[in-house]
Amino acid sequence: SKEVLSTFNNKSLLKSKAYYNGKWIESSDNRTFRVNNPALAGSDGEFIADITSTTSTDFNTAIESSYVAFQQFKKTSPRYRSDLLYKLYQLMIENQQDLAKLIVLENGKAYADALGEIKYAASFFQWFSEEAPRITGDIIHSVVPGNRILALKQPIGVCGILTPWNFPAAMITRKLAAAIAAGCTVVVKPASETPLSALALAYLIDQAGFPADVINILPTDRTEEIGKLVCEHPLIKKVSFTGSTRVGKILMSQSASTLKKLSLELGGNAPFIVFGDADIDKAVEGAYAAKFRASGQTCICANRLYIHESIYDEFADKFTKKVKATVKLGNGLDPTVTHGPLIHERSLTKVIEHVEDAVSKGATILEGGKHREDIGEFFHDLTVLRDVVPGMKITQEETFGPVAALIKFGSDEELLNLANDTEVGLAGYFYSQDINRLFKISEELDVGMLGVNTGMISEAALPFGGIKESGFGREGSKFGIEDYMIIKSVVVGN
Amino acid sequence: SKEVLSTFNNKSLLKSKAYYNGKWIESSDNRTFRVNNPALAGSDGEFIADITSTTSTDFNTAIESSYVAFQQFKKTSPRYRSDLLYKLYQLMIENQQDLAKLIVLENGKAYADALGEIKYAASFFQWFSEEAPRITGDIIHSVVPGNRILALKQPIGVCGILTPWNFPAAMITRKLAAAIAAGCTVVVKPASETPLSALALAYLIDQAGFPADVINILPTDRTEEIGKLVCEHPLIKKVSFTGSTRVGKILMSQSASTLKKLSLELGGNAPFIVFGDADIDKAVEGAYAAKFRASGQTCICANRLYIHESIYDEFADKFTKKVKATVKLGNGLDPTVTHGPLIHERSLTKVIEHVEDAVSKGATILEGGKHREDIGEFFHDLTVLRDVVPGMKITQEETFGPVAALIKFGSDEELLNLANDTEVGLAGYFYSQDINRLFKISEELDVGMLGVNTGMISEAALPFGGIKESGFGREGSKFGIEDYMIIKSVVVGN
Amino acid sequence: SKEVLSTFNNKSLLKSKAYYNGKWIESSDNRTFRVNNPALAGSDGEFIADITSTTSTDFNTAIESSYVAFQQFKKTSPRYRSDLLYKLYQLMIENQQDLAKLIVLENGKAYADALGEIKYAASFFQWFSEEAPRITGDIIHSVVPGNRILALKQPIGVCGILTPWNFPAAMITRKLAAAIAAGCTVVVKPASETPLSALALAYLIDQAGFPADVINILPTDRTEEIGKLVCEHPLIKKVSFTGSTRVGKILMSQSASTLKKLSLELGGNAPFIVFGDADIDKAVEGAYAAKFRASGQTCICANRLYIHESIYDEFADKFTKKVKATVKLGNGLDPTVTHGPLIHERSLTKVIEHVEDAVSKGATILEGGKHREDIGEFFHDLTVLRDVVPGMKITQEETFGPVAALIKFGSDEELLNLANDTEVGLAGYFYSQDINRLFKISEELDVGMLGVNTGMISEAALPFGGIKESGFGREGSKFGIEDYMIIKSVVVGN
Amino acid sequence: SKEVLSTFNNKSLLKSKAYYNGKWIESSDNRTFRVNNPALAGSDGEFIADITSTTSTDFNTAIESSYVAFQQFKKTSPRYRSDLLYKLYQLMIENQQDLAKLIVLENGKAYADALGEIKYAASFFQWFSEEAPRITGDIIHSVVPGNRILALKQPIGVCGILTPWNFPAAMITRKLAAAIAAGCTVVVKPASETPLSALALAYLIDQAGFPADVINILPTDRTEEIGKLVCEHPLIKKVSFTGSTRVGKILMSQSASTLKKLSLELGGNAPFIVFGDADIDKAVEGAYAAKFRASGQTCICANRLYIHESIYDEFADKFTKKVKATVKLGNGLDPTVTHGPLIHERSLTKVIEHVEDAVSKGATILEGGKHREDIGEFFHDLTVLRDVVPGMKITQEETFGPVAALIKFGSDEELLNLANDTEVGLAGYFYSQDINRLFKISEELDVGMLGVNTGMISEAALPFGGIKESGFGREGSKFGIEDYMIIKSVVVGN
Repeated sequence: SKEVLSTFNNKSLLKSKAYYNGKWIESSDNRTFRVNNPALAGSDGEFIADITSTTSTDFNTAIESSYVAFQQFKKTSPRYRSDLLYKLYQLMIENQQDLAKLIVLENGKAYADALGEIKYAASFFQWFSEEAPRITGDIIHSVVPGNRILALKQPIGVCGILTPWNFPAAMITRKLAAAIAAGCTVVVKPASETPLSALALAYLIDQAGFPADVINILPTDRTEEIGKLVCEHPLIKKVSFTGSTRVGKILMSQSASTLKKLSLELGGNAPFIVFGDADIDKAVEGAYAAKFRASGQTCICANRLYIHESIYDEFADKFTKKVKATVKLGNGLDPTVTHGPLIHERSLTKVIEHVEDAVSKGATILEGGKHREDIGEFFHDLTVLRDVVPGMKITQEETFGPVAALIKFGSDEELLNLANDTEVGLAGYFYSQDINRLFKISEELDVGMLGVNTGMISEAALPFGGIKESGFGREGSKFGIEDYMIIKSVVVGN
Repeated sequence: SKEVLSTFNNKSLLKSKAYYNGKWIESSDNRTFRVNNPALAGSDGEFIADITSTTSTDFNTAIESSYVAFQQFKKTSPRYRSDLLYKLYQLMIENQQDLAKLIVLENGKAYADALGEIKYAASFFQWFSEEAPRITGDIIHSVVPGNRILALKQPIGVCGILTPWNFPAAMITRKLAAAIAAGCTVVVKPASETPLSALALAYLIDQAGFPADVINILPTDRTEEIGKLVCEHPLIKKVSFTGSTRVGKILMSQSASTLKKLSLELGGNAPFIVFGDADIDKAVEGAYAAKFRASGQTCICANRLYIHESIYDEFADKFTKKVKATVKLGNGLDPTVTHGPLIHERSLTKVIEHVEDAVSKGATILEGGKHREDIGEFFHDLTVLRDVVPGMKITQEETFGPVAALIKFGSDEELLNLANDTEVGLAGYFYSQDINRLFKISEELDVGMLGVNTGMISEAALPFGGIKESGFGREGSKFGIEDYMIIKSVVVGN
Repeated sequence: SKEVLSTFNNKSLLKSKAYYNGKWIESSDNRTFRVNNPALAGSDGEFIADITSTTSTDFNTAIESSYVAFQQFKKTSPRYRSDLLYKLYQLMIENQQDLAKLIVLENGKAYADALGEIKYAASFFQWFSEEAPRITGDIIHSVVPGNRILALKQPIGVCGILTPWNFPAAMITRKLAAAIAAGCTVVVKPASETPLSALALAYLIDQAGFPADVINILPTDRTEEIGKLVCEHPLIKKVSFTGSTRVGKILMSQSASTLKKLSLELGGNAPFIVFGDADIDKAVEGAYAAKFRASGQTCICANRLYIHESIYDEFADKFTKKVKATVKLGNGLDPTVTHGPLIHERSLTKVIEHVEDAVSKGATILEGGKHREDIGEFFHDLTVLRDVVPGMKITQEETFGPVAALIKFGSDEELLNLANDTEVGLAGYFYSQDINRLFKISEELDVGMLGVNTGMISEAALPFGGIKESGFGREGSKFGIEDYMIIKSVVVGN
Repeated sequence: SKEVLSTFNNKSLLKSKAYYNGKWIESSDNRTFRVNNPALAGSDGEFIADITSTTSTDFNTAIESSYVAFQQFKKTSPRYRSDLLYKLYQLMIENQQDLAKLIVLENGKAYADALGEIKYAASFFQWFSEEAPRITGDIIHSVVPGNRILALKQPIGVCGILTPWNFPAAMITRKLAAAIAAGCTVVVKPASETPLSALALAYLIDQAGFPADVINILPTDRTEEIGKLVCEHPLIKKVSFTGSTRVGKILMSQSASTLKKLSLELGGNAPFIVFGDADIDKAVEGAYAAKFRASGQTCICANRLYIHESIYDEFADKFTKKVKATVKLGNGLDPTVTHGPLIHERSLTKVIEHVEDAVSKGATILEGGKHREDIGEFFHDLTVLRDVVPGMKITQEETFGPVAALIKFGSDEELLNLANDTEVGLAGYFYSQDINRLFKISEELDVGMLGVNTGMISEAALPFGGIKESGFGREGSKFGIEDYMIIKSVVVGN
């Protein structure tokens, strides 16, 4: 993948060291870890870069420096922070093509998806640059005559940000932008699979003129150790994590000793529902987008497709045709490619297992269904299964891969029971033309986010987050900044 | 204490069984636990009642019933819930004298304090009866032309409420009222020291006409076991706890396995600061109230009194005179008594230890300082210590008792360092006439709540809660209901 | 009507003098005006009472006293005002039957409608009792480091309230409750047709314990003179008026000389639309309610019924049947009566004129259509006209009477053009099952309020008010109190 | 002044025609009016440009085109409008020096003041670019089970914007930016004294890519005629005016016939108060800024300086020294000049009259006091008067010129009576160190805006506007956009 790097307009974006104190540093033990291109897994070209693997010592230092920086940064005016964030927004937009390539390289998604991610990622810097000057406290009347209550909003302190590989840029910016807008300082640990995008961002942060130690970004492959350190460190007042429900539970447990405030964006198992009165063609488009974006590797991807029995066959047919007509697997840098590889061996294994399990229990493959070693080690067909029924693994666990499981349902009541029968609740989707369903089904589905007659819901203005075991906290929107602030109530006597 | 019970206007308030499914039930193993009057500890009259000690089995049943009830209650109109809450407010006010007596009996605080608590407790039913109809979602513009985003607010689900003995009524109502207003159902575990107030409240809930299982109140002395059960139960979506930081950490750790949403109101170590330009007489009044309310047994009681060196002697003198002139220890039912006993042997022990430690390290007793066995086993003098310095235990731990530790300070900078040098941050107080200090000191003190020129801050309109290891979440105010709701984002395509 | 008065439970509600300074006074010139029962117009029994007709002198005195009272009342705590308003709410509910009878007597509407009005009227005292403690200012960050901006909300001052006869109670309480919650004092001029309900309210205000001169209620029949005085008086800072667009324009012009802040709820010409995909039976129910409530004499009554051509005949048929099957004209005190008389000779004349004009231009009478002198002088049939077309008077002016004009339409585009082709824009209604219409039609109809699949929209939580020449300002809801407050921005330097 | 124009970096900013339909047009009668430089009044160099004087015909055309444009523009996404506004912000900042020179030329203020105005003016485009995506409707619970209430926020329609000469750029942008953010289209009539800044802005609007007719800017000297036309035109739904109270009353009266929604920012008579405990040096700085900015020609300039008797002499002495040491009159383009001329003959006359009146009634001139024909026809000394007492004209009318009238006061009570004894209430200022005064005096002063220990209050985040006869409506801040929106309540039945 080295030759791709030589095509970058701005080669300064390629960094392999940690960004600390406004400088690029080696880890305390000088160890590095390797980052490979999943599209080329197993081939000669898979190597991208060796990246500094920071240590507990490095993190402790960074957190302490971040704490010192916080003492000044918390006093800056929101408009000052707004200007910094806006500058960073502009820099991301200016460098969008290089940044998108970097995502393709380390994550494998198609270039158009990667470019979409960069625009989405940048939009949070714009959004929170606008939010900062709108931090507003309250003046409340007291029952005691002459007393006044002021409710001030203040930054919570140093924040630890722990992010996943599936959105190498956007999962960082969605948290970082809110924290900075609030007046916090942050220490970021990017995913070990995708540190390059994080370091490119660090470079732009540096260019934007942020004071030293306001944002420290430390790559590492010592994920468990550092996760624990961040959750237990007394100087960190807030941890925001996006990742699996399993890891989320561990982090919450580790955070108990310091009563850390948490934002957790965890796993989903999104139902995608098509009612009998839906516009089927639109539903097909929506399902394709919601199911297969980034090959099914997003936490809000549709995982279970519930199709009303009256239109099940028609939908299955049209949906299969859509997939056949549209998809091209390959290296995401090829502009004609629509879908790349899975990220990992273990991701692939789960996909294969879910397909095999379903078929063994009676499901039929309408399209795809194969591990595509002919293209690359981690490639798998975009797959459509019909006659999926509850009890198959694919209806119970998040597949996080490109398998569309079409399940038949009858009544609305049955549908709600099926759709809600899961411990998690992140996203969901439904298609119907009926006003009453708009409210009734929206209210009854136990998820944090819902697309109605649309398969694309993400944008900066959306309150993003889950319920049940999909976590808590909201990112983006007018709520996102609140997760990084405290409310201080001041009663002024007379 | 039996004879006191006979003086009640409304003897129906006296209950000893658990309130479940709109009925009064025994525990599954028929065990009871004894509740004693701390003012009469060790004497013949100490016995108040034997109370049903509910079991894990009982709690599991109650939680499941509460879950069933939630399916209907979540759909009720906010105005319906408002009416129920208002009715409950009226019933508490009507029964305020009996309810206050009950607090005196089981908690020991003076009658005037107890009556104040009942009014404060009732005010949350009024406040949240007003909040319910104001639950408001948002309609947000999408960047996608024609798409609309609806952010709905919905009740989070079944809530577990775990409360302490120091406010036997108010700590329940502050949580309960918010949960009900939001549309949640709740299971309450009151403190084992003070279940009678909780059960009297249950009686009024019943009278107010709440549907069965919307509120279940289960007394028990199996505190640890039940706390764990509540935190780990998958049907409970939210736990709200008021108590110590130590227990808060345990509950958070236990809650990790179900990713439960938490509100934790934990320990404090409140600084009370008198600057050189303060109105000293007002500061004396404020310090007396903030330090000695309920004999120092509230989480927002002043724990460390920082007095500017220029007025230290004058303040110490006037404050001591105030205590001498005002205090009368005794049984709280005696209307001339201003302060009652401590709740426990171990509370008393800590107070004695803090005084002895301080004196041994150079502090001087200006007033009190003695265990008052002459009055009762758990009584201790209201005590004023001067020449207290950092390093004494009383400056480092929450005393939770009637000892005022007067510490001298010089510059504002020194003061801020001293006051913020603690892992907790609940309440604080300062007295000054200066506009600049109003904002600067308020912003710099690391606490969740602050009284400026007042020693009394609690009321329903106040956002109540702490920062740092004093927990998270806010009770009362316009924020309190949010802890019991989820935000559901609905994107409507076109 | 005298004998009806003798059936009142609470005869104290019957007042004929002005309520000023907490006392009942005669006008300065001792003149009175007669109030008659429109159901008995022309008959012996029409006389209800002779009411004091206050003068400019009386109003000047009342305004000055109100200004004096404001100096104290503005400083009261919102909770104090809340308690007063809640008390008044309770008193109205306790006296609802008598108050409803009074409305029937002076306004003529059916008893069930009158009782509904009293509950609606009372609900504003409840609503705004809840709003008062929620008056909240803002703390805004300045771009100048260290500066803070406080945006305080304060009562605007003495308010003049001018109200109509069609809701003798509710039009007063909707304004009064908001003004009082904000901390204003008010001078009320009720309609000369219906002063008795206003004076009964004054009696309850007195009973509730409002301080003298906080609310003065002065009946008069010198409407024009007093309207002008109120609008031009320099001590009055705000005028709220509900009535016709014609009078609204006059008052706005008169208010210019003192730059008075105005809330104007003026005339409507509400379209009621039934799309082809609507639930026709529900649409019939909705149309009946929206068109004929109070015999069409409310400002949000449907005035033009647009029915899609595909269902026009079916709708016309079912709607006519509904009217035939349901309506009974008569004296509203008769519990079997559904509809009473019109209020006036000139109201009746307009109704007759609109029917005649429509028929002369080709409309057909499906039901009713006659002046019903057999029942009483001001009675007119509930009337259904089909084949109404644009250009008939009834499509251009507010009929304010019981005539349903059924107009046919084809495309949505045509419908929007028809419905929006009027200078006013108060209420509107449409029936459809389609999600897209929900948003598209709602956004495109130029009205302030819209019922979708419902014909009943009024409640305290609804932001009530119009656009275009239907006026400005919003009543009820969280917005209603804002019309009675000013925002004061305080920049605190450092 | 022609040679100055040749020094512009961007000569495209110099326009003399009207901006309509994205084009530069002559007026329908081809008449022009002359714009002169007030600093060179009466001299050869005073001529700046001849500007197209648009007619009623032109305005009618522009309003109709604006109405057509509104039908599309109202449907644009807020983010689209945000992008346009942000682009305009950037263009103003890029052209700030030229734009500032233009203000100096036509208004006369010093260059530093003019540059400050441009930054202030541009900041509204930034602010409202951030506000647009935050337009948020409400989802309200109904008392009717199953009904939902949606409160949509929509643009009000075509807006007329009428602006004054004292802030040739900022008074336009403060209104325009809010209107555009809301989705309105606008027709602007700039002051006839200062149309060049408005037309330069029109050029940048064109460059920013606004669709044709979304913003039309039509210079004219037919001020009265066009003001009336705008207020009476039925297609205009909103008029925003900044100017005198006298004209505000006329416009309100004219607006009555169409019930137009109004925002009126009118005259002030700002008190500037120095209490005995104030920091006198800071108060002197603040008074200098608040009184003499733009030679006293801003509506929030201090007009009456109330100085506590205990520090009156000291303040008078220091303030006079400050003026003597700082001021240099002259042509604002000279960078050493601090203050320019008055705008008009009639402005000058009023200043001279106020000084003469004060001196004749016993005031003493401490500094200045003379018409400075030696510098230019419209120049007048910055003037300090002591021993000013109530009854002098300068205490009763807005001087709108560079005269500081020092009035002595004793008690706070006396001060409040003096300060509030005026029909207007725009801005005010006070200096004190006392916390209690912060709230008490802030609450009691009858003004819309208040500087406490600061003489500079304007910024985009500040809710700007007056009370009493200073008008109504708020500009800037989170409230500013509301003046350009309607609330539409949609009740969705079930």
